[in-house]
This record gives sequence, structure tokens and C-alpha cells, in this order.
Amino acid sequence: MPRLDMPLPELTQYRPAVSEPADFDAFWQRTLAESRLHPDEPRLTRVDSPLSEVEVYDVTFNGFAGDPVKAWFMLPVDRAGFLPARLPAVVEYNGYGGGRGFPHEHLGWVASGYAYLFMDTRGQGSGWGSGGDTADPHGSGPAGSGFMTRGIQSPDDYYYRRVFTDAVRAIDAVRTLDRVDPERVTVCGGSQGGGIAIAAAALSTGLVAAMPEVPFLCHFERAVGMTGNDPYQEVVRYLAVHRDEVEQTFATLSYFDGVNFAKRATAPALFSVGLLDPVCPPSTVFAAHNHWAADADIEVYPFNEHEGGQGHHFVRQAAWLARQLAG
Amino acid sequence: MPRLDMPLPELTQYRPAVSEPADFDAFWQRTLAESRLHPDEPRLTRVDSPLSEVEVYDVTFNGFAGDPVKAWFMLPVDRAGFLPARLPAVVEYNGYGGGRGFPHEHLGWVASGYAYLFMDTRGQGSGWGSGGDTADPHGSGPAGSGFMTRGIQSPDDYYYRRVFTDAVRAIDAVRTLDRVDPERVTVCGGSQGGGIAIAAAALSTGLVAAMPEVPFLCHFERAVGMTGNDPYQEVVRYLAVHRDEVEQTFATLSYFDGVNFAKRATAPALFSVGLLDPVCPPSTVFAAHNHWAADADIEVYPFNEHEGGQGHHFVRQAAWLARQLAG
Amino acid sequence: MPRLDMPLPELTQYRPAVSEPADFDAFWQRTLAESRLHPDEPRLTRVDSPLSEVEVYDVTFNGFAGDPVKAWFMLPVDRAGFLPARLPAVVEYNGYGGGRGFPHEHLGWVASGYAYLFMDTRGQGSGWGSGGDTADPHGSGPAGSGFMTRGIQSPDDYYYRRVFTDAVRAIDAVRTLDRVDPERVTVCGGSQGGGIAIAAAALSTGLVAAMPEVPFLCHFERAVGMTGNDPYQEVVRYLAVHRDEVEQTFATLSYFDGVNFAKRATAPALFSVGLLDPVCPPSTVFAAHNHWAADADIEVYPFNEHEGGQGHHFVRQAAWLARQLAG
Amino acid sequence: MPRLDMPLPELTQYRPAVSEPADFDAFWQRTLAESRLHPDEPRLTRVDSPLSEVEVYDVTFNGFAGDPVKAWFMLPVDRAGFLPARLPAVVEYNGYGGGRGFPHEHLGWVASGYAYLFMDTRGQGSGWGSGGDTADPHGSGPAGSGFMTRGIQSPDDYYYRRVFTDAVRAIDAVRTLDRVDPERVTVCGGSQGGGIAIAAAALSTGLVAAMPEVPFLCHFERAVGMTGNDPYQEVVRYLAVHRDEVEQTFATLSYFDGVNFAKRATAPALFSVGLLDPVCPPSTVFAAHNHWAADADIEVYPFNEHEGGQGHHFVRQAAWLARQLAG
Amino acid sequence: MPRLDMPLPELTQYRPAVSEPADFDAFWQRTLAESRLHPDEPRLTRVDSPLSEVEVYDVTFNGFAGDPVKAWFMLPVDRAGFLPARLPAVVEYNGYGGGRGFPHEHLGWVASGYAYLFMDTRGQGSGWGSGGDTADPHGSGPAGSGFMTRGIQSPDDYYYRRVFTDAVRAIDAVRTLDRVDPERVTVCGGSQGGGIAIAAAALSTGLVAAMPEVPFLCHFERAVGMTGNDPYQEVVRYLAVHRDEVEQTFATLSYFDGVNFAKRATAPALFSVGLLDPVCPPSTVFAAHNHWAADADIEVYPFNEHEGGQGHHFVRQAAWLARQLAG
Amino acid sequence: MPRLDMPLPELTQYRPAVSEPADFDAFWQRTLAESRLHPDEPRLTRVDSPLSEVEVYDVTFNGFAGDPVKAWFMLPVDRAGFLPARLPAVVEYNGYGGGRGFPHEHLGWVASGYAYLFMDTRGQGSGWGSGGDTADPHGSGPAGSGFMTRGIQSPDDYYYRRVFTDAVRAIDAVRTLDRVDPERVTVCGGSQGGGIAIAAAALSTGLVAAMPEVPFLCHFERAVGMTGNDPYQEVVRYLAVHRDEVEQTFATLSYFDGVNFAKRATAPALFSVGLLDPVCPPSTVFAAHNHWAADADIEVYPFNEHEGGQGHHFVRQAAWLARQLAG
Repeated sequence: MPRLDMPLPELTQYRPAVSEPADFDAFWQRTLAESRLHPDEPRLTRVDSPLSEVEVYDVTFNGFAGDPVKAWFMLPVDRAGFLPARLPAVVEYNGYGGGRGFPHEHLGWVASGYAYLFMDTRGQGSGWGSGGDTADPHGSGPAGSGFMTRGIQSPDDYYYRRVFTDAVRAIDAVRTLDRVDPERVTVCGGSQGGGIAIAAAALSTGLVAAMPEVPFLCHFERAVGMTGNDPYQEVVRYLAVHRDEVEQTFATLSYFDGVNFAKRATAPALFSVGLLDPVCPPSTVFAAHNHWAADADIEVYPFNEHEGGQGHHFVRQAAWLARQLAG
Repeated sequence: MPRLDMPLPELTQYRPAVSEPADFDAFWQRTLAESRLHPDEPRLTRVDSPLSEVEVYDVTFNGFAGDPVKAWFMLPVDRAGFLPARLPAVVEYNGYGGGRGFPHEHLGWVASGYAYLFMDTRGQGSGWGSGGDTADPHGSGPAGSGFMTRGIQSPDDYYYRRVFTDAVRAIDAVRTLDRVDPERVTVCGGSQGGGIAIAAAALSTGLVAAMPEVPFLCHFERAVGMTGNDPYQEVVRYLAVHRDEVEQTFATLSYFDGVNFAKRATAPALFSVGLLDPVCPPSTVFAAHNHWAADADIEVYPFNEHEGGQGHHFVRQAAWLARQLAG
Repeated sequence: MPRLDMPLPELTQYRPAVSEPADFDAFWQRTLAESRLHPDEPRLTRVDSPLSEVEVYDVTFNGFAGDPVKAWFMLPVDRAGFLPARLPAVVEYNGYGGGRGFPHEHLGWVASGYAYLFMDTRGQGSGWGSGGDTADPHGSGPAGSGFMTRGIQSPDDYYYRRVFTDAVRAIDAVRTLDRVDPERVTVCGGSQGGGIAIAAAALSTGLVAAMPEVPFLCHFERAVGMTGNDPYQEVVRYLAVHRDEVEQTFATLSYFDGVNFAKRATAPALFSVGLLDPVCPPSTVFAAHNHWAADADIEVYPFNEHEGGQGHHFVRQAAWLARQLAG
Repeated sequence: MPRLDMPLPELTQYRPAVSEPADFDAFWQRTLAESRLHPDEPRLTRVDSPLSEVEVYDVTFNGFAGDPVKAWFMLPVDRAGFLPARLPAVVEYNGYGGGRGFPHEHLGWVASGYAYLFMDTRGQGSGWGSGGDTADPHGSGPAGSGFMTRGIQSPDDYYYRRVFTDAVRAIDAVRTLDRVDPERVTVCGGSQGGGIAIAAAALSTGLVAAMPEVPFLCHFERAVGMTGNDPYQEVVRYLAVHRDEVEQTFATLSYFDGVNFAKRATAPALFSVGLLDPVCPPSTVFAAHNHWAADADIEVYPFNEHEGGQGHHFVRQAAWLARQLAG
Repeated sequence: MPRLDMPLPELTQYRPAVSEPADFDAFWQRTLAESRLHPDEPRLTRVDSPLSEVEVYDVTFNGFAGDPVKAWFMLPVDRAGFLPARLPAVVEYNGYGGGRGFPHEHLGWVASGYAYLFMDTRGQGSGWGSGGDTADPHGSGPAGSGFMTRGIQSPDDYYYRRVFTDAVRAIDAVRTLDRVDPERVTVCGGSQGGGIAIAAAALSTGLVAAMPEVPFLCHFERAVGMTGNDPYQEVVRYLAVHRDEVEQTFATLSYFDGVNFAKRATAPALFSVGLLDPVCPPSTVFAAHNHWAADADIEVYPFNEHEGGQGHHFVRQAAWLARQLAG
Repeated sequence: MPRLDMPLPELTQYRPAVSEPADFDAFWQRTLAESRLHPDEPRLTRVDSPLSEVEVYDVTFNGFAGDPVKAWFMLPVDRAGFLPARLPAVVEYNGYGGGRGFPHEHLGWVASGYAYLFMDTRGQGSGWGSGGDTADPHGSGPAGSGFMTRGIQSPDDYYYRRVFTDAVRAIDAVRTLDRVDPERVTVCGGSQGGGIAIAAAALSTGLVAAMPEVPFLCHFERAVGMTGNDPYQEVVRYLAVHRDEVEQTFATLSYFDGVNFAKRATAPALFSVGLLDPVCPPSTVFAAHNHWAADADIEVYPFNEHEGGQGHHFVRQAAWLARQLAG
């Protein structure tokens, strides 16, 4: 894909006005309060895996409406007690369509000495990879293929209300675990996982850091119709049919816009962006980064598309996060 | 698309063995019995439309689990009582992803003097056309984009269990209407609509005829993996992730295979098929046609893909149906 | 397709200068005068169709050079004389590559109580749909595939000279019919049909209204080379070969530019436009709309491509046209 | 493109039955006789070109119905009379959509010491290359884009009736020229040009040789629907619309099938074929080769698509033709 | 991609004759002997990485012609000496176009308690992922884009002669390391890495096992031209230009065909195959598996393309390898 | 492709600043000086070809590092001594991926009375056409498919250092030939050949003219990332993997940028450009043209893509070159 967005100097200054509903905070307070009526403590089962050097647990925690949500929780095996009693933790959210797969597919942070929780995304997990295990027991009104337009007729019914709530509840859950230091929890994720991380960071308190990579779900008013690629294009296709619902659709989406969450962020953040990204156009990423209410860095990958920094970026994240924890 | 299936002489003889679960009939009897605990009678509202020559009603009937399902019901305006008191009726089901749209988009059968009901497909109606109005209030386990794999983990939860039940209930509903002759009801539809018509014909009694065009949802064991096109390819993508669920997936699908319904058909049928159809390969259509337990004709369109006979086929259907009603 | 043209506020102000030949009016006066040497009255044959509620006539009228051009003419069956003796009429032109097909494919206006004529496009009717029946007995110089470059070496020989003349003569013909009110004729059509409707509206007198949808054949100097999609791209391919004919080609096209016809319009118009239309880019549609010399409205479909408003737009057209006729 | 046709051993034996109309010979005798009422002698004009080493003439000869058809005629400049008074001649026909372009684009045979005539294809010459100069003054009934379906409603009106007649008349014309030895004329061409060469070879007498490369227009009953590529696909699209004209269409095409011409060939032939050719599938080429009634060789390019042997093949043709002329 | 190869029952029996040069063994003995003139011992440098739980070494060993080849060598950190002094080792080769990237991208086997070496592929490492670090200092004759045709004019110059030799030398190198048990070395890899693993297994002695996934570089005579996908298609493109080199090209490739290596295998193998794989068609994988001269299992992924089993397959490999080591 | 670059009036004024290394001239002086240590005189062998009217020689000359480079040298056969003793010469370079092929594929300039040398491009000649014959005996560090990134880690190792040197040495070689007038040598070529011609023109002295068509290898800082097409996209893919090498990569490329060569040109030039060219965007061509230090014309083809002017342009080149030689 050739360059399709503003030049970098404009991107770094791009801080657009984004629609924000008057009851944004009330909506989320109510939403979280209702879900927090269910217990925080997850159910953990030790998993027998080939990973002799890793303790692996199959986790079920209470998500939106108390729905059971699956995750993997992992720690380095510590045969002789060399590691601290409580470890800093990283909570990761997944990209669009993927499932939690297998524990051996998520080893980077554990091998770096962190406690680590990888959350399954409800209803997803059948598009690529090794599969998901979490149902989304809520139906929807008429919707296109994909998850982007399920329940888009109202903020209460919208799919990502449930997912973002799950994400906050995953943080709640991990903080209850013996081996986790609840004061040193970081969230991360790429693409959809980055969008979820942004929301979770804004809706939680006391996080050490957030590390959204090439985040999705930011600045819908620009993204929808700017790129012809899914998943944003799912909204275009929906509106191409539901020609009378343009206003309501964007009203719903404004409750879920990463930019509105960024304005409420309290933890420092490390973003990444690919300047040739045709899936999550760079201006939509910078919109969230430039509105981030706490400290924010961004790694710019000038010749990458949506894959962003990949392995290179993990190295940068690990160093940056070590500095945050040291700081 | 070039030819991709057997030559026509083989197709006309193709009558494959297709997996059939032992409790196929029990499953559907139980399913329909449960849904028939809800009343048959639909709610009708006269609609104000530009169609001065057509009586148009917005219909809501009780579908699977009593869920409200929308439809349009239409009759020729009969200002001076020239038409019979009760008209023969045509019930039509829609193609994949479409919604009931507007009444003026469904005028052929009404202009030909039939009472006509067009059923919305639950949850769909956002992929093309003018939109749907029917929710599917049931969630699902992990599933791919699209509707093909929702609830595919078991026959009880599978999406098409709800849709096929809706389709039978639409027939039940139309038969309660004053202006409809309940002994002269025909079902039709193209692609997904054809697959639904096949199921509805097998699960209902006393229909005059069924007219499935280029039907989808037939002979899954051949179709899935034979064509790379959606919606069959949705199942391929699901199984490409859920590598351990091949057996269960086809076990579920066997309850919904048009071939198994065809074996139970009691009304005469007029099929159509496009010999270059890369979406619903001809052999899968002939599999249903050749297993049809009652009289069955098929119009072969040798150089058409999935569009099949389009306007040409309506002319043939109208003549064929007139003969059935006359006969 | 992502957005590819100006933002809406600029589009609504976009009123470009477009080349207009000095003898534009003389050219068309001469052209029409020559064709009007042939009689106006069409030949009508009642057609036996399944449409019991519609009177259907197979029409042949004298088009350009008196060439026979086919059409369907339809009226609501009026068994008891409830309808007025003369009905308002709608004349519709077809999209690129399509034929008149079957009467049952054109029921919206008849079901709404109008007399209705659907004109076949000479030489076309083999690209999609159910087929055309009208020859174009005129050959051409070297030309690409498609119709866009046939005879493009001079305005006299250009293919659309014949088509636009046919379109005017279709109006002439429908006005001669007993059941039609010649003072209440409206023209419409989508894409190529919209472009023809614009020309026919400008070249006829006394029309009630024109309703071009997502019109093609407007503002060639911008459209050719701006979009890579056919049919405009046919001209690009022609000029990519005939590198010395750029000037002559656009000189020819200037006699057929919808913008030049719009400047001469006398009837009110309802346009439509899809803001993501990659076939007929929005600015080319707005160019015609903004130059329209009579009253003009436009329905904007912000997330549609070339399909525009489809069923939604018919509802808006029907209401708008009723207001024009009432007005 | 991967392999899509029979393995080579089967191809070399493939000699299918192909429909042949009873009046095939009568049709072509009548056709040629009518066109031969016009004079054979072409009009030649010496052309001023940069080609100092080549005599170049702009040729106009009488084609079908006496229509003027353009060609280039070229000879090596022979400043001192070293060359024979009469040279052997090569007549070449062009691929689909191309025009005669410029003389400097056709230098191979002239540089090899032949008199050379390159025929423009009527109506074509706007699809690729440098342009054509020959009109096709005959219109047609409804037809798709492209040339394949123009007049396909009857053999008399079919486009290739005119083109094949032009091709025979080009041979007649070149034989009248002073510098050409009329007993030593060879025809050649690639793709459409190969198909024309086959027809011209069968419809002419006394040729030295024919050299069709990857010929098009052979074995329509197999080719149409076997490959999804144009131009054969043009016929598929036509029949996908004109669903009732399958029989008539193939009846027309049988008068133009290269296999039926091959059965009547009297000159030796050198064919070529690309075994991965998705445009003119190898079996259709072998069908013509294997039916060739005179001696026939074929160069097989096992890993080429429709480009066939290109520069490699010219070397083989030149050597083969030299042997034919020497023999 | 739809199914493109034989049905599974035929695949499991498919054991084709494949060309084998008379001096195959001599060629490889000479090749290895020459490279083994350079020392076996690699140069290791401890790497500072975020991976606190893994010992990471940057390795340089002597490959073909003594050229320096890079690798990563990794072990679990063993703070208290719980692990055995010498670990079983896994040597992995990479897919086409990829580089060794970062250590954190290769954690599965280390986390499972193995010593692990990941070899860089010379000259590659710029197509995807995080980059390679190994030059290929040998030029080539005319070649297409990609690596498949470099030096294909003779076995001595062919690119994969160097790569396969590197692969054998990687095994030699890892066996010299203190922490590795030289009697318990296993090779693995996917796609190109699978093809390399097959060659390395046949050219080495005393391996515990080989685990090629969806291997490339097998049964060239079938693969080249059967699939239109790279990298096999690189050979097609080469031969489409070098039309006279077909025989020589396949003669060269026969020295590198995985089937010929399989015939010489001495270690047990676990293959994998995707039945919809359009890159390495299943029959080419089964050809190698079915010719494997030692015990061989194969995991069949019926609905996967070239991605094969991914995370699922690692689980199966880990269990299978544990059994081999236990056995 | 639709328009993708600036409007023509801006293009004609576009004269961007382009990075130029301080030692640009020193680098090339050193490079050429080293290669000129090898003799200038080529080895010529008369070739037996079908081209009776052309003297054809197979040429081998000493290129970069004295590596043998192949070419064709051709003259008109001059049986009676009508031509001058020494002819003006044209040296042509080839497009990306092509080889010198056959002599009969390069006849235009010879037929126009010029001595003509067509240089093979080292290592290339396997991508299209009839094949190349010149090895590139130099290996490289990690590189992508294609030639664009071979040795891109430093100017000394970069592939085009060798190619540009070959191009200069081809001029040196042709000037040694008896039949060539060394004062009247012109360079030309299209795409890559145009880029090479620009470099060769700047690095040679005393040329009559340069005629680069749609030149590649100009203004890398804009081209790389502006178009998504190869070969520029090869650099994007490289940098998408080697994320840390952006600066070094563009530093290397600055030694090879056509704009920097244009600034040093001394011979008049005729450029060509296609305004819809998605491979070598028009602004990159104009950047070189507008910086050309001597007289420069440009033929603009407004509706062409990368094919540019083709046969039309040869006519214009021939006339322009005749004027240069006459002047």
C-alpha cells in the first residue's frame, strides 16, 4: 500500500475534535458498576502442557453481566524460589477475529519474567490462529458479518460494551492473584487488542502503563470511509444498507472511541504506528496518542503497514516497560 | 468462472449418500413442537406506501422460541372485488445477508395475482439491499464472521435451527390469514432462500409446491472445501482454526442438509441451477434435486453462475406454478 | 472503496467550467429534426405475461434515423375503470450494458399507478440481466470493447448521439398514447440511464420532472482519468492507444456532456449520489446537479458506492414526484 | 496459472468431434464469391518513415463487401538490386484488440528478406498497442462488450465472417503486387491472428505454409466455459444473459471454428502452443492441429501461458519456413 | 482455496517415481566433505535480551565453503542447576524469505526444556518478519526474482546446495556445544524449513527425529506448474523465459528433491500437511512422506492451506518428540 | 489506474531538493577508474541468424570489475557500400527483469540506419521475454526478492553500482568499433533502461543525446512509499523488515538517484512520461527532467501508464534524434 494519510509532521500535530456524548462517563460508570456486582476472583486450573519451564493456568473470570470469559495465566517456573513473591503483570488483549489459542503462543512476557494474562475475546476466535473458547451469549439486531455492527443500534447493546467491560474485569481478576503485584499491572495488545487496551487503561485505575500497538477502534468519524479495509469497512457496509442510521451509528460509536478514552488516560503509554497502515490509518492512531492525557510515546514504523513493529517493537516495549517499572 | 463440477450427464445422475443423523426426524419434531407452543396468528399493520395498486402489510409472527420475526404481506388492490376471496399464496425466503427491504422490491408474485409473504431472515439484513428488521436474540460460542458457524458446536444451538423454524412458522402464519387459501401455499427463494425453502417444504405439510433456485445449504460434505467462496468457505475458515472440531461440525450440519430434507419432501418442486455456479456448485444442487422424494423438475442454466436464471426463471416458475395449481 | 473525491461541503459548491462547443444547440437541433422526419407513433402489441394485474405492451418506436427501438409499456389493469382515463407517465432509461429484459422486472412505477415506458438501449442488453432486443445498425471506426468509444472520432458518428436521440423519441412516442397524459411525463434512470435522462430532459420540452440517479456521462474532462473504473476507463484505454486523438476525443464528448445538458434543463430534477461511488465520482454528479438550470434536489448517500440509494431512493422519488405532480 | 488441461500425451492424441454445419462450404463459397466481385488490386502509397532500410507502403484493399481495409506492406530497401525481382511473402494477422500500429513495429520478416503484409483488423485497434485505422461499417444486434458476440445471432451477420473474408482478400491483394511471388505466400499470426490464419489458409489455395501461434477461435464447444478468460468468456457472458440462445450461438460459431477450417487445410502448418495457456487452452489448439488435413508440426512451450514462444518461436518459424520454401 | 489435489485415500498411497541422478550420493558426499574442511565449532556470544528466563547466544558457524552463517542458540536459564548437564536439542530451519529475527520470536522449544538452535537462511531475511543477518556471498547467472532459480544452470551452483550444506553444518555445530547431548538432536522447520529439515536429516547421521511441516522443495516435477503460487512458480516463470532449459533445470532440481532425500532418511519423522495447501500441494508432501525410508507419521489438517497446523501442531510435535526421546 | 500524482502544470515546475552525498563524484570517479583498468575492446562474434538484411554480432565486453557482459551489436547489411563508413550509434539498456533476448527483437534503430548495441543487464533476463546471458558473479547480504535491495547496505556493494558501470563501459566498448562514429553515440532505454541511460549519460562524455523513456531509479525519497508497485515497492518491503536501516538505505540510494545524475548531464535529452504511470510516478520522472543540466524535452502521454508512448514514441525519438545529429 502506498502512503495514504498525512505526512508525519502533520500527524504528530493532529489532534482532532471527536464527538463525545455528554453521558460518556456515566455510561461507563453504570456499565462497570453493574458488572462488578459479580465477584472479581477468577477460577484457575493448572494446565498440563509441554512447557516445562512455565506454570500455565486456564482462567475463567466474570466478564460483562458475569458472563464467563476465558484467559491464560502464566508464570515462569521458579524451581528454587529465585523470583520475587509477587511479579509485575502484563495483561494482553487480542487482535480482531483471533482466540486465546495455546499457551505456547504467548511466551514473550513470561520469558521476560512477568506474570502474564492473555484474555480471550468473547465470540471471536474462529478467524485465524488456534481458536478461542469464550461464548458471547448475547444476540443482536440486524448486523453485518463480523462483530463491528452487532448491537450498533444502541450503546447499551453494542458488542464492544461487553468486550471493554471484560477487559476491565480481566484487570480486576489478575489483581486478585497471589503471585501478582496489583500495583504493577500493565495492559497491552495490537490492533483490536490495542483499542481494548486503550479503553481498559482509561476505565481502570492505578495501572503502571499501557502499550497499544497500531490500535483499532479510534477516531471512527475519520476511519469509517477513509479506508476500504475491514474491520472499519464493516461499518461502511452496514451504513450502505441502513442508509437512515448514519447519525445513530456514529452516536453509538462515540461511546467506544479510543480518542475519548485517551482523554481520560492516567497511566503512561507507548503507542506504535505503521505509516503505511491501510487498516488502522496512522491519523486515527495519532488522534488517540495526541489526546492521551498522561505521558505518551509512540514508535513510528515508516514503511510498515498494519503489522507495525512486530518483533522489533517487543524489544522496544520491554525496555520501555522496564524503565516505567524502575521509574 | 470456468466449469468446475461434473458434466451435465453425470450431474443428472448424481445421487450421493449423505450423512443423516439417526434422530433427524425427532430433532425437528421436537424443535417445531416447542415453537408451536407460541400462537400461529401474526400481527399485521397496513403500511402506507407509494404502491397504490398493492395492499401492503407489515407482519410480525412468532418464530423460533416465539421470537418476533418480520415479514411483508402483500395483495393486489381489488377495488371492485374481481379477485377471489382467498388467493393462492407464495412465501419467499431471502438470500444470505439480505433483509426484507421495502415492499416495492418484491412485486412479481403480487402483480401475478398471488397473495405473497416475504420473510425477513433473523439477524441478517445488513449485507446488501435495503435492510432487515429482525433481531436474532440468541448469542453463540466462538464463531467466524458471518452466520454459518454460529452455534455450530451443536444442532440445538445452530443458527439455522432458528431460521428453518421461522420459515415453517411463516407458513403457519400465512395460512391463518383471511385472504389466503391455506391449501394453496407455495414456498420459494434463491440461494439461502432456496435452502430455507427446501427445509420448510420438508417440515411442512400440504404445500402446493416448492421452488428453490440455486439453493444453498445442500450436501455440506461436498460443498465445504470444494468451492473457495463464501458462505460455504466460512465453514472452511472455521475448521482451519478449530482443527479438532471437524467431526462435530459435520455432525451438526447433517441436521440442516438440504439433501436430508429433500428425502422427506412431499410437494412437487421446480429447482434451478447454474452450471458455472462457484458459490453453490451444481452437484450440490443436483444432490438435493435428485433425492427429492416427490416430483421434481430442474431448469438448467448452462452458462450462468450463482445468479442462475434471474428474470428468465420467474417466467418459467410462473408458468410451472400455474400448472401445479391448475393440476 | 474509500472516499476518493472532495468532502461534501466542497461538492455542494462545485460548479466547474466545462467545455461547450459553439454549435452545441445547432448540433442537437439538426439531429432531432432529422430523426423527427420519421413518425412519432409507436407500434404496440399486447403481451401475454404472467402479470395478471398489469397491461403489458411490446413497443417499437422510431429512434435515431428511424431505426426501430424496443420498449415495454405498462399500465395497471383497471378492471372496473377506477383509474383516470389518462395517467401520468414515467419513462425510464437503462444502465450500461443492460437490456429491457422482462416486464416483470420493472414493476415499481406501475404498481404506484403510473403509465410506464422502459426503453431498450440500442446495441446493449448482453452484459447483465435478462437481455435486450434492439440492434444498433450503425458500424464504427476503430473502437475499444464497450460502447464508449464507438464513433468517438466525430460527434456525428458517436454512439450516444443515437442513444440520446432514441431517448427523446421515446418521450415523443409515449406522448402519443391514449392512456398517457402528455403533459405529465417524467424521465428517470440510473447511471447510464441517469445520463440519458439528463440529456432527454434538456432536449425535450414540457416534462414534469427528471430523476437521474448516480448519473454517468457527466463532466468527462474530470471523470476520464480520475476513476480507473469502466465505463469512463474505456475512454482512457482508447486514448492510451490513440495518443494523438486526445483533443478530438474530448471535443466529441463535449457534445454529450451531462453538464452541458444540465445548463439547458427546464424541468425540476431529483438527483442522487453515492459519496463513495468509484464509477461515477460524486464531483461529476454534483457538477451536473449544480449546473441544473431549473430546480434541483439531490439525495446524498454518504456510505454508498455506485449502487446509490436503491430501494430507499425509490421511496424518496415516489414522494418527490407525487409532490411535483400535485404542485 | 497452473496446468488446467490434459497432460501432453493426451493432447497429442486429442482429435475431438466438432459440430460442422452441412452448408459450411457453401456458406464460405458464397461469402467469398460475393466479396470477390470487388477488385483484387490494393491501393498503395509510399510512406515516409524513419526506416531508411525498408520500403514502406500504406495499403488499402477491398475486404468483405468491398469495405476498405488497411495494411502495411514492406520490403527491404534494395539499393543495388541484389534481391530477387519477386520475393516470397508473409501475410500476418493481428491479435485481438490490436491495430496495425506503425511499420517499425513489424520488422522481423522484412529484415529476414521477405515481402510482408500486415493486415489491420476491422473495428479493432483500440485495445492495446499503437492503434488501428480500419472501420467496421456494419452494426449489430444486441451484443456484449468486445467483438465476439457482434452479429452472433446468425452466420451471415457474425463479425468474423467479415474478418475472415478480409483475410482471404488480403492474400488476393498481396498476390497482385509486382514484387511478390504469388506462388510463395505464407500466412501467420498469433492468438486471434492465428485463428484468422487458419481460416485464411483453408479458404485460400496455393499457399506455401501457415504458421498459427497459440490460435484462438478453435473448438468453441470446449473453449467456451472451460476458461474464464476473455475473449472466449465474452460468449459465456452473452449466454449468461441470452439464456435462450445457446443452441443458435453455437450453430453460428460452428461456421467459424478453426477445427472445421483445419479439416480443409491444404498447406503445411507450424503451430505453437503454451501448455499453461489460460486464454486459448492447449486442447483447443491441439484440436485444430490434430485435425489439420495437411502436414502439421507444433512447437510445445510447456511452461508458457498465452505468450507462447515469443522471440524463441520466430527463430523456429524462420528456419521452418526456409525449409518449406527450399523444399 | 478449494481442494486442488487428490482425495486423501489416494494421497496416502501416492508414491511416485521421481527422477534421481546417478551421482546423487557422490554429489552430496563431495559437497559435504569440502565444507567439512572448515572447523565445526561455532563462535558464540552471550546476548543481552529482555528474556530474563532464557540464555541467549548469537552464533556464527562455518557453512558452505566456510561462509559465516548466523543462528540463535538458546537454553532455559537454570539458576539452581535443576536441569541436566546436557539437554536434547532442536535445530530449526526457516520458511522462505524470512530471517532469524529476534530470540524472543522462537521460544516454544526452550520453554519446553530443550536446547535450541535457529539457523538463519543465507541471503534471505528481507521478505517478512524481523530480518536476517547472513550474506550469501555467491553470485549467479541470469535468474528471476527470488532464490529458486539462482544458479539453477548446474547443481554445483544452485542456491540450495549452499543452504542444505549450511543446514548439515548447523547440526555439526550444535553437537559441539557443552550443554547439548549430541546423540539427541532433532531437526524441524516449516515450508522451506521443512524441505531443509528433510535434506539435513538425510545428509546427517544419528539424529533422533525430523519434523518437517508442510515441506517445500519436494517432487519438483509435479509441483512446478501444478500450483500457480510462489515459490514453485518462480521456476515456471524462469522456464517461461528460458524455454530451452527445461531439461537442464529439472536435472539440477533432482539433486535437491525432498523425495530423493526421503529415500535416504534414517531417523523417524513427523510430517504435517494441509489438504487445501496451494503453495506446497499435498501430493508433493505425501510423496516425500510415503518415500521416507524410516518410520514416518503425518498429521493431516483437512481444511488448512499452507499455514498447516500452527499452534495445534506444536502440541502434537512436542508429545511425539517426547515419545521418541523416551523410546 | 486513476491519476495519482500532481496535475501537469505542477509537474512541469516540480524541481525538488534531493539528497546528494558529498562524495558523489568521487565515488563514481573511483568506481569507473577501477573498472577502466580492464580493456575497452569488446569481443565480437558474427552470429548466424535469419536476419539476412542485418549484420549481427554477439558481443562480450568488460563491465564492472572486468566481469564479462553480453550485448548484441547490429548494423544494416550494406551489400554495395551505400552506407557511410562509420555510422552513428545507439546504445540501449533494458527494462527491469528482461534479458537481451534475440537480435530480431531489436530492429528499429538498425532499420533506421544506425549502428546499434543492446546491453544485457547482469543477473537479470529471467523475468520476461526471451532471456539474458550475463551473470552477476557478486553475492550480497540479506536482500529481498528482486534486484533492488542487493547490497543496499552500502554504495560499494549495491547492485546498481555494477550495472551503471557496465552501462558506461558499453559506451566505451561501442566507441572502439570500426563501423561506429565515436562522436555520435546516443543512449536510450525505457523504465530501468531509462534510469541506466540517465546514469550512463552523466557518467560519460561526448554523447550526442540521451533518450530516457518513463525512467525508473529517480527521486527515491518520493518514489519509495508513494507507489505500491514493484520495483520501488521492493525497497518498501525491505524496510518493512529492516526497520532500523531506513537512514542507511536512503544514504545508499542517493548515490544512484537519477536526479543527481541529471544535475550532471551534458548531452541533450528527450524524456517521456505517462501521466497515469503507477510504476514510475510522473513526479519522479519530471524531477529528473527538470533537473537535467543540458537541454531537455519531454513527451507527455496523458492517458498512459508505464507503457508510455511505445510505438508512437519511437517515431518521435527518431525525428528528434535526426535533428540532434543534423544540428
